[in-house]
Amino acid sequence: MKNSIEVVLGIDIGGTNTKFGLVDREAKVYFSESISTRAKKPAQELFSRLFTRLDEILIARSEHFEIKGIGVGAPNGNYFTGGIENPPNLSWGTINLVDIIHTFRKEPAVLTNDANAAALGEMKFGAARGMKNFIEITLGTGLGSGIVVNGQVVYGHDGFAGEMGHIIVERNGRLCGCGRRGCLEAYVSAPGICRTVAELMADTNTDSELRQIPFNQLSSKIIYQAAEKGDMVALQAFEVTGKILGEALADAVAYFSPEAVILFGGLAEAGDFIFKPAKENLENNVLKLFSNKVRLMPSGLSHGEAAVLGAAALMWNELNHKVGC
Amino acid sequence: MKNSIEVVLGIDIGGTNTKFGLVDREAKVYFSESISTRAKKPAQELFSRLFTRLDEILIARSEHFEIKGIGVGAPNGNYFTGGIENPPNLSWGTINLVDIIHTFRKEPAVLTNDANAAALGEMKFGAARGMKNFIEITLGTGLGSGIVVNGQVVYGHDGFAGEMGHIIVERNGRLCGCGRRGCLEAYVSAPGICRTVAELMADTNTDSELRQIPFNQLSSKIIYQAAEKGDMVALQAFEVTGKILGEALADAVAYFSPEAVILFGGLAEAGDFIFKPAKENLENNVLKLFSNKVRLMPSGLSHGEAAVLGAAALMWNELNHKVGC
Repeated sequence: MKNSIEVVLGIDIGGTNTKFGLVDREAKVYFSESISTRAKKPAQELFSRLFTRLDEILIARSEHFEIKGIGVGAPNGNYFTGGIENPPNLSWGTINLVDIIHTFRKEPAVLTNDANAAALGEMKFGAARGMKNFIEITLGTGLGSGIVVNGQVVYGHDGFAGEMGHIIVERNGRLCGCGRRGCLEAYVSAPGICRTVAELMADTNTDSELRQIPFNQLSSKIIYQAAEKGDMVALQAFEVTGKILGEALADAVAYFSPEAVILFGGLAEAGDFIFKPAKENLENNVLKLFSNKVRLMPSGLSHGEAAVLGAAALMWNELNHKVGC
Repeated sequence: MKNSIEVVLGIDIGGTNTKFGLVDREAKVYFSESISTRAKKPAQELFSRLFTRLDEILIARSEHFEIKGIGVGAPNGNYFTGGIENPPNLSWGTINLVDIIHTFRKEPAVLTNDANAAALGEMKFGAARGMKNFIEITLGTGLGSGIVVNGQVVYGHDGFAGEMGHIIVERNGRLCGCGRRGCLEAYVSAPGICRTVAELMADTNTDSELRQIPFNQLSSKIIYQAAEKGDMVALQAFEVTGKILGEALADAVAYFSPEAVILFGGLAEAGDFIFKPAKENLENNVLKLFSNKVRLMPSGLSHGEAAVLGAAALMWNELNHKVGC
């Protein structure tokens, strides 16, 4: 009989695609695949396809895998309950995802939201190795945050802590998807920087190639490419976005005094365009006690596999905290 | 031989007075006393007097006490280092307080800042008994916060986390004692509400008995007494203070999702004058996910002994977390 390889199954559920893969304790990803989420169908349908495909893969592989558990990152995923409440972009309503998984597989399963999974991935496999106090910020369609204190994710009383995207940075500011006004995520996110570009185009007459692009076709990538060519509106949009992020981080530092803040996701790939103003405004606004103490870093998770690594780290973290594991 | 009673020595150091007392595991305070801190003399001088007085008391008492440890709450006290860095109102500079205590006594000693000590006191002996996630806010000359996540105080990477008094609630707002502008503590604290009264007197012509009092003689107590008599400026000052506090708490809830926020200290004793607008504005501003989930409560520590109970709870907490204790 072949030696079996101990792995966990990491699953990251997105509005469009769901990634899954087998990951061992050393961050080795034995495979990862993406299947379409089919957001309008029930969750059972997704997991039925996912586990059928997993079985096919397991049969085809030459190695023998021992799956120790299943970690899942999903929007609005609740660590305490194993449930998801009205996830954005998924017509699932409120369901218990762990219970659904257990109709297919018997291994222990655990769920959290995608930002918390990214933080755990960073702590186990990425830029936060060895850290016990840090903040992971995911910059995508929204702004998510996974906050680690004393080596543990901050879940709060109900499992929903860490909603830094919804702190108010401007009273009566921009309308946010949550229905309130002035949330950080309405400024610092992929759609947020597009809104800032529109605001700058309205506010000045500065020439810009972005004026030729309809709002609905703008993206953080297009703005980044324009900034690289020296487009003044694009450059200014990154300055504004980084400033608002840096100011918000100065407050977060007062709460948490983290060793580092790690930026993850599309907008973070703009590099210095976002890191430079964010760092500068963090230092300009932070309480003197914390000056030059907090590192602002890019994620250390390889881009393609970050989501699966995060979900896998969640499960490894559970297994490591059980006595005897 | 008499049975000995297991206690810890709780010490709370303030700019004017230092309180100390012996407290058992059940929050029984066997005695507590206050001595003058003499802020301009070195810390050694304070502890020399304190321990001399303690010895006198121990000899005079009929019980035999076994002192298991010493817990100290002090401004800028650092849990990790046992040191104090440039405490406001004390000309001690940067010293290691635990080392100084150990020149007098051999028992284990531990230090934290006053707000963290209050949070630990609340969790062990007060309104937060049984809670694992809550925020303690001390409203006095400043605004301090002790934040508890998963049953542990949030110390952060360097021991200085939980500085909620220095989150920015108004960019370029009021000058704060920290040298920056717009900090929460410049609005929500005893001096903060006095400044709000001055602002309201400047902004309107509303008749008020507070117009007869020099700014330097105003206090939160005088404003409270005026509010009780229906003084419109005093009432409005509490509304404004509670609103700013409630808005800031809505953001804190997004970070921590606490079970409760507990208000402690002089300003909190104004009862509904501060609690009502704070609660109302917390609920009006909080992310829907957290609506009506967070309790806003007064401290459950008896006023006179709160500081000593907090410092004692800090030491009991240490002893309880050691294996075999």
